[in-house]
Amino acid sequence: MTRGKFITFEGGEGAGKSTQARLLHDFLLARGIPADLTREPGGTPGAEDVRGLLLDPAQAWNARTEALLFAAARADHVAQLIEPSLGSGRWVICDRFVDSTRAYQGGGGDVLDSEIMDLHRIGSGGLLPDITILVTVDPEIAAERLAARDGDTSDRIGGKPASYHAAVGDRFRELAAQEPSRFVVIDGSGATDEVQARVQKAIAHWLGETG
Amino acid sequence: MTRGKFITFEGGEGAGKSTQARLLHDFLLARGIPADLTREPGGTPGAEDVRGLLLDPAQAWNARTEALLFAAARADHVAQLIEPSLGSGRWVICDRFVDSTRAYQGGGGDVLDSEIMDLHRIGSGGLLPDITILVTVDPEIAAERLAARDGDTSDRIGGKPASYHAAVGDRFRELAAQEPSRFVVIDGSGATDEVQARVQKAIAHWLGETG
Repeated sequence: MTRGKFITFEGGEGAGKSTQARLLHDFLLARGIPADLTREPGGTPGAEDVRGLLLDPAQAWNARTEALLFAAARADHVAQLIEPSLGSGRWVICDRFVDSTRAYQGGGGDVLDSEIMDLHRIGSGGLLPDITILVTVDPEIAAERLAARDGDTSDRIGGKPASYHAAVGDRFRELAAQEPSRFVVIDGSGATDEVQARVQKAIAHWLGETG
Repeated sequence: MTRGKFITFEGGEGAGKSTQARLLHDFLLARGIPADLTREPGGTPGAEDVRGLLLDPAQAWNARTEALLFAAARADHVAQLIEPSLGSGRWVICDRFVDSTRAYQGGGGDVLDSEIMDLHRIGSGGLLPDITILVTVDPEIAAERLAARDGDTSDRIGGKPASYHAAVGDRFRELAAQEPSRFVVIDGSGATDEVQARVQKAIAHWLGETG
């Protein structure tokens, strides 16, 4: 049994990565490739419960507690869903993974990147995606897209100021620059199907290289 | 401002440590020593929410996810309650702390002790108690005490088999043997006030040594 491919989508709020992940999943299924679409934090019943705590506006977690809760949700998700799927030959498309924790919790300087990776090693064996699609858009476009959503910006992450989101975007680009063989940076501006065409082209190019 | 003392109680289910922690707290207050009584997992609103997830019989966390959730609850508890109290000169009496994670999650061999201590370092700066009271009783006495409680053995920890609790007891004794300067092992058999007299004698002896 050939192990499935593990593809993650990363980016700031409003970049359109969730939509692109769903469209890529549809595309793979249409091509006869067995694939699961999932997301973080969450993806399994236990991890979704942890997600509820993380996004609860009534909580005041500090960055270290947040990093541990994300790692706990991820450990459950990897053990219960991602690894079993990959091991059975299914592809897994995941909307956010450890790079989001590195960008959001690690970007502020309160938690070291090496500490986040230590948590990931202890919780999830250090599993990394085969390819990570970083979807980037100008902050103005992201703000417009977020404004068009109904009530989806009131949680603990979405409610943060623009400077916070700009720092997160910078951090994602740094991570992509550090691991050019794993990351593909995709321009998320323009129509949804135009962006999806870029994603599919990148995946095809990567498969051509790696087989 | 002299930093307060940090005293933890450890032991298996039914050892009587929660009762002994409460009685020691009463004793300190009666002697005019400002002290907080708290417990793990929990102790702060956020950590109590994580406790709810940990003890939920509907969940099927593996040992690594459990270790991360305990570390997350502890990080919130240390940052929001324990460190502020100690820093303001108050003593803190805590019913269970990191040694419980080492005995319960580390004892089964699924998570290394070094990994649990890594999580504790990242989440809580590696904070250790000034003194840890390990309350031990024979398994038969623990079983009798647990049976006398109403409906308190149905959660994910209390519902495990006797062999599991015996292994946890062995692991606590190993931890105590490794750090004799921090641990005091107290015989938890006999009447509640007799055990409390042993606890108070141990604390007085320790204070006489450390000032």
